[in-house]
Amino acid sequence: MRSLLVLLLLASAALAADPLPSWNDTATKQAIITFVEKVTTEGSPDFVPPAERIATFDNDGTLWAEQPMYFQAFFIFDRIKALAPKHPEWKDTEPFASVLKGDLKSALAGGEHALIEMAMATHAGTTTEEFEKIVADWIATARHPKTGRLLTEMVYQPMLELLAYLRANGFKTFIVSGGGIEFMRVFAEEVYGVPPEQIIGSSIKTRFEIRDGRPVLVRLPELNFIDDKAGKPVGIQMHIGRRPVAAFGNSDGDLQMLQWTAAGKGTRFCLYVHHTDAEREWAYDRESSIGRLDKGLDEAKARGWTVVDMKRDWRRVFAFEGQ
Amino acid sequence: MRSLLVLLLLASAALAADPLPSWNDTATKQAIITFVEKVTTEGSPDFVPPAERIATFDNDGTLWAEQPMYFQAFFIFDRIKALAPKHPEWKDTEPFASVLKGDLKSALAGGEHALIEMAMATHAGTTTEEFEKIVADWIATARHPKTGRLLTEMVYQPMLELLAYLRANGFKTFIVSGGGIEFMRVFAEEVYGVPPEQIIGSSIKTRFEIRDGRPVLVRLPELNFIDDKAGKPVGIQMHIGRRPVAAFGNSDGDLQMLQWTAAGKGTRFCLYVHHTDAEREWAYDRESSIGRLDKGLDEAKARGWTVVDMKRDWRRVFAFEGQ
Repeated sequence: MRSLLVLLLLASAALAADPLPSWNDTATKQAIITFVEKVTTEGSPDFVPPAERIATFDNDGTLWAEQPMYFQAFFIFDRIKALAPKHPEWKDTEPFASVLKGDLKSALAGGEHALIEMAMATHAGTTTEEFEKIVADWIATARHPKTGRLLTEMVYQPMLELLAYLRANGFKTFIVSGGGIEFMRVFAEEVYGVPPEQIIGSSIKTRFEIRDGRPVLVRLPELNFIDDKAGKPVGIQMHIGRRPVAAFGNSDGDLQMLQWTAAGKGTRFCLYVHHTDAEREWAYDRESSIGRLDKGLDEAKARGWTVVDMKRDWRRVFAFEGQ
Repeated sequence: MRSLLVLLLLASAALAADPLPSWNDTATKQAIITFVEKVTTEGSPDFVPPAERIATFDNDGTLWAEQPMYFQAFFIFDRIKALAPKHPEWKDTEPFASVLKGDLKSALAGGEHALIEMAMATHAGTTTEEFEKIVADWIATARHPKTGRLLTEMVYQPMLELLAYLRANGFKTFIVSGGGIEFMRVFAEEVYGVPPEQIIGSSIKTRFEIRDGRPVLVRLPELNFIDDKAGKPVGIQMHIGRRPVAAFGNSDGDLQMLQWTAAGKGTRFCLYVHHTDAEREWAYDRESSIGRLDKGLDEAKARGWTVVDMKRDWRRVFAFEGQ
């Protein structure tokens, strides 16, 4: 009881301060705050009951960086190297042979098909518990090739503040990503404050088995669900069963999630993070092979969705930049 | 702020009273309370942090009745009758023809295959929003053939108290049922206090489409997932990503969920509802075609799981029995 009161007092103190200190005082920040105040003001025509305050966030390029390639691809490559002694055939089989030679460009030349093949070879064949440990061990030390920072430090400070601000206002925050659901779950609670049951992602099938008298879930080399593009509203309905009130993305892969969110009744909020800061982060949009934002940018303009201009709107990008 | 304080005071008053008034003071009730107190006492070796307090409940036969047949089957039959004018061929096609003649026994003679065929014919072909409205309209008036009560009154009062008791102690309560996920979501929040994002069930596939400029999710006549037996731990991992601390079921279809729960580290709680009360409810177990409890009963005894003897342990079964 006492600790709840303390929490309430702390919460009210936090609300009095600027909830989004890493956002510059631009129209973007104001649009976020205006939306949150509208939907949380009782008696307002835009009021949304707490149970319906669902906010969905893409991960790659929206909550953490995705250049020079999706971070999960680094995991895949490292796993191929680690598993290579058990797979002597990989030396002569693409795309594995290129990975083992360190030629990542050739490894990825096969496009989505090659990536899925490598994902299967590295994400299946373990139990769910074993896989969780493999990811946890890897992410604890995996560093970004350009910044040298831990990958878990490559998260956008303004977006962490936004997640916390929404939660302080009664929102349930979900991640809805093309990335692997079990990959993200390992670090999302600690890094983003999003618990495993609020992570939606791509997945492979699992099978329940009793092994040596102990039940396990075995990860199978068979696709279950691709949580990208038109898959995102499907994943949202499957896991949440309620249409988001707010959705946040950065690429054409998020467009259908934003369309689905915007089409709900009443006030909705759709936001695109536009990567415009080549100095502090990266600048890319319509022509990028990773995180392409083309149709989405047009639709955001046509529909009046909020677009973050990273260079203009974010006072800092990463926490490690300092104050 | 003020309303939160009032809520806190109400909550503490409620905790002081008996949280399970519809349970007789038997060893079963004591086992539940002992478990909850152990895992919520800070400093106890059995303490479970709030984020990990996941409790999963089967629905049919565990939270509401399932005799003389699964309530969703009544929905299927009523939908077949409602859709019959658009399907003249059903008059001569089994199992539809038997349903239209009112011969439900023959309709179900085809077993699971016939049931899935009828489920597809009645659950697909609409958008998710249309389907939600169809179920909502139906469940608002659907009554039980024996008691004449609304189906939503056929819920077990002791289990409603148990759900609330667990939530008051920081548990997140989930439903994990072989029933249709979108069928249950329509009433589970109001009836059980379980929001749509905490419902796990069987499902058909959906497809995202833009229709007349408006995005919709179309329900397809294609199985997506059967959330029963060995599917239950798979569904739990997919949706929750965390092993339950407590699991509640009533049939062999729940056995794998209980096994998966019991095999976690630390204190876990597994409970079977045993239907032993032919007078107030129904009495069935090893030989029943619906909700068979055979292997599960043996395993519960062997492992020391808690078994509710409905006749002995429940002071009342349904709220409509009165005090």
